[in-house]
Amino acid sequence: MNVVTTVDPRNGRRRETGLLETDDERLEAVVARAARSAAWLDELGRPGRARLLDAIATSLEADRADLIAVAESETGLSRARLDMELTRTASQFRMFGDVVRDGGYLEAAIDHAAQTAIGPAPDVRRMLVPSGPVAVFGASNFPFAFSVPGGDTASALAAGCPVIVKAHPSHPLTSRASAIAIATAVRGAGGPDDVVALVYGQQAGLALVRHRLVRAAALTGSIGAARAIQNAIDERDDPIPFYAELSSTNPIVILPAAAATDDLADGLFASFTGSGGQLCTKPGLAFVPSGPTGDTLVEALRQRVAAAGEVVLLNERIRDAFTERQAALERAGARPLARSAPADTAGFTVSPTLLEIDLTGLTSDLAEECFGPLMIIVRYADASDLQAAIATVPPSLTGSIHATDRDDRATVRRLATALAARAGRIVFNGYPTGVRVAWAQHHGGPWPSTNSPHTSVGATSIRRFLRPLAWQDAPEWVLPEELRDAYHEIPRRVDGHLQPSRA
Amino acid sequence: MNVVTTVDPRNGRRRETGLLETDDERLEAVVARAARSAAWLDELGRPGRARLLDAIATSLEADRADLIAVAESETGLSRARLDMELTRTASQFRMFGDVVRDGGYLEAAIDHAAQTAIGPAPDVRRMLVPSGPVAVFGASNFPFAFSVPGGDTASALAAGCPVIVKAHPSHPLTSRASAIAIATAVRGAGGPDDVVALVYGQQAGLALVRHRLVRAAALTGSIGAARAIQNAIDERDDPIPFYAELSSTNPIVILPAAAATDDLADGLFASFTGSGGQLCTKPGLAFVPSGPTGDTLVEALRQRVAAAGEVVLLNERIRDAFTERQAALERAGARPLARSAPADTAGFTVSPTLLEIDLTGLTSDLAEECFGPLMIIVRYADASDLQAAIATVPPSLTGSIHATDRDDRATVRRLATALAARAGRIVFNGYPTGVRVAWAQHHGGPWPSTNSPHTSVGATSIRRFLRPLAWQDAPEWVLPEELRDAYHEIPRRVDGHLQPSRA
Repeated sequence: MNVVTTVDPRNGRRRETGLLETDDERLEAVVARAARSAAWLDELGRPGRARLLDAIATSLEADRADLIAVAESETGLSRARLDMELTRTASQFRMFGDVVRDGGYLEAAIDHAAQTAIGPAPDVRRMLVPSGPVAVFGASNFPFAFSVPGGDTASALAAGCPVIVKAHPSHPLTSRASAIAIATAVRGAGGPDDVVALVYGQQAGLALVRHRLVRAAALTGSIGAARAIQNAIDERDDPIPFYAELSSTNPIVILPAAAATDDLADGLFASFTGSGGQLCTKPGLAFVPSGPTGDTLVEALRQRVAAAGEVVLLNERIRDAFTERQAALERAGARPLARSAPADTAGFTVSPTLLEIDLTGLTSDLAEECFGPLMIIVRYADASDLQAAIATVPPSLTGSIHATDRDDRATVRRLATALAARAGRIVFNGYPTGVRVAWAQHHGGPWPSTNSPHTSVGATSIRRFLRPLAWQDAPEWVLPEELRDAYHEIPRRVDGHLQPSRA
Repeated sequence: MNVVTTVDPRNGRRRETGLLETDDERLEAVVARAARSAAWLDELGRPGRARLLDAIATSLEADRADLIAVAESETGLSRARLDMELTRTASQFRMFGDVVRDGGYLEAAIDHAAQTAIGPAPDVRRMLVPSGPVAVFGASNFPFAFSVPGGDTASALAAGCPVIVKAHPSHPLTSRASAIAIATAVRGAGGPDDVVALVYGQQAGLALVRHRLVRAAALTGSIGAARAIQNAIDERDDPIPFYAELSSTNPIVILPAAAATDDLADGLFASFTGSGGQLCTKPGLAFVPSGPTGDTLVEALRQRVAAAGEVVLLNERIRDAFTERQAALERAGARPLARSAPADTAGFTVSPTLLEIDLTGLTSDLAEECFGPLMIIVRYADASDLQAAIATVPPSLTGSIHATDRDDRATVRRLATALAARAGRIVFNGYPTGVRVAWAQHHGGPWPSTNSPHTSVGATSIRRFLRPLAWQDAPEWVLPEELRDAYHEIPRRVDGHLQPSRA
């Protein structure tokens, strides 16, 4: 059995964690216990599950100091950033509490028996039910918000599904501490062990998605990781849904008049260097007009990058990939405007890097995501060329447009349409980083940003862990209460008409 | 280029259709035209698209006599059945017209800018948008309702997606006549050619799902067909969603007291032999109690089957598979209660077949779908063994329970739970055939009944051909009208609260 180690990216020091990679026997026990806990989640009902989600938020906040300390030592992310991330993570559980209380996510519908064009039709009632145990693969770059206590876990629990998380190898101790905080809340609610379980090791992760009791899988990670997981799923007799959020370039288009906007250099700098540029929504490309206004913007940005300190990346692999990609981009003709040589430290540090190319030099290869604090400025002479340029950029989670009243509306409309075809969220006069966790959020997009038309952030992410079920001519006492005639505490569609909740 | 032929299953006669299999060049032109027509569907808006769906229904009904005649000659299905199917098909278009007018399917949501726990958050608005051109693979067994003018086509058009149908080789002329009826309605609405296009031939079907402009695919068919299509999709750089409805045994459990119900033998007989047993919801297994009441039911059923005439199956392949499966089941120990030897005709006829096994002899292999008029009676001594037996039956689209007030409620509840885990629709005191097309319908289930947690029948099937898109801080003039503050004609979720339509 392999031992699990952890590395402090600030100094490269590796130490043992006292944890072991999960072997087959232990995996079997963990998954079986998690699967059995589905009955408890069901018995809680929606009010009980909402209270559990609130209690998990409170439990995470109670452990805030310890969680942040351990996460800092494993990720090198700043305390301020981790503090904000933990707040966001707790809020996310509370939002799903609201989603569960609201009940609209059940998509409850009733069609009473009726005469139709082809004769009498039976009573049919439909709602969404939990899909069953979910395998979650945590991401390296959000040790809370996209890891053990992240959005996948919160939305799966909200749906009524037990969760087995495969801990990310970059932060095993943070994963463990988070799982303990969740388990404390579960125990407080009278729940069994392993409602949210944790496994360690790559092999355990693959065995998990092959396990007969696991009914869905979710990943925030690389295309390579997604491929390995999909291959393991393809070995099953019964395919299961797999929701993966993968790679994103997040282009930002700055129209001519907008290039003169005051705080644009500050905004761009913060958005591509924040958290070491290790955000899935980091803008990797910015289209800037050629000419003096664009020159001024680029120079202001260059100065900020040149003056920036080094940043610690999450792990050695990410650091190495970053430096290789940086070199490859320069070899491919991107002009370095600001960057430093790799720092002479034992830690995984790099310098923020700003590159520049001309629009004519833009290729899909150049425009692929570079994970880390790197942005490519693409200089354009004519805004009418931007639409075709956007079609060269790989599809992304987001696309942004900066435009003022002096920019051409028809151009903005055309660009919005072009970006809408290749992104899941269109941002106006803002930055794609800082994803709002809300009802209307969508965090997904055409391949390779996600592998399916679903979101991994926001209220509707719960949809991934539910499946529809219909009852035909069922007696009241068999129906879930939400589908009985006299129940009015959730929105339902009755005989085709939407009836809001009377709660 | 291969010519397309058609066979009359009533006499096995093959004739030329004057059609050619679609080659690469023609496919490219067809898909390109279909893709361009997306702009027209978008310009129609929801009211215009609803009118188009109504017009297609009317156009199909105007061609009713011709459509039924050609379908009869290609499928061997009765005129009465085809007449009802055409009515259902037209109603389905009209239902999607209602769905589009209602607008709830857009899942529109608005979160206004707000202060949150981690600071100011932007305005975010979300709704579903058309996914783009859809490839539809028609089924053999519903030449209208699951073929060219079927639910996949209707729901994709409703969503705003152009459709390219790969015609089923068992009814090319019916496919063509249906496409002409649709095209007449499209032309009447001022639309371009190939909003709903048709291609012929297996290679064209595979090239279709590999085509860069095709954004989703839908199939009602066999596991083998699904595998071939999935393999072709896997050759793409960008995976696309594939929705397949495949194989289903549809077990019916008859509890002890219910076995004495009067018209049960008639109901079971009609459900498993109607349309030659070639329905995806045909009950292939019926659990009947041992003892005198069960014996009486089985004998009544046996008499009906023995007295039944031969039925024509859809094509030679289905007839051959049926006779092979029938023989294999008998070799595996199923006792034939009623069946005849293959008829001595040139047509693809078989006799309805009733087999019997004991519960102890039930295996997953025996319980696999047999397409055609065959049902296996499973005799059980103890209702407490039924739960485990259900776990042996492959997951299905449906599971049915017949119970009276004298049957044990706890048993019914346990069985309903067991079936819910392995089916998408639970039917009480009824039959799974005759799927109601309605808002609350769900026609899908765990693998192998469908390959994804989606339905291919009912209002929510439109969800398959939509993808979410979010707008952040967008000016009003960029937003679709459904997401502007002053629009109230569809249900929307605003700042977390569901607001019904004011239309």
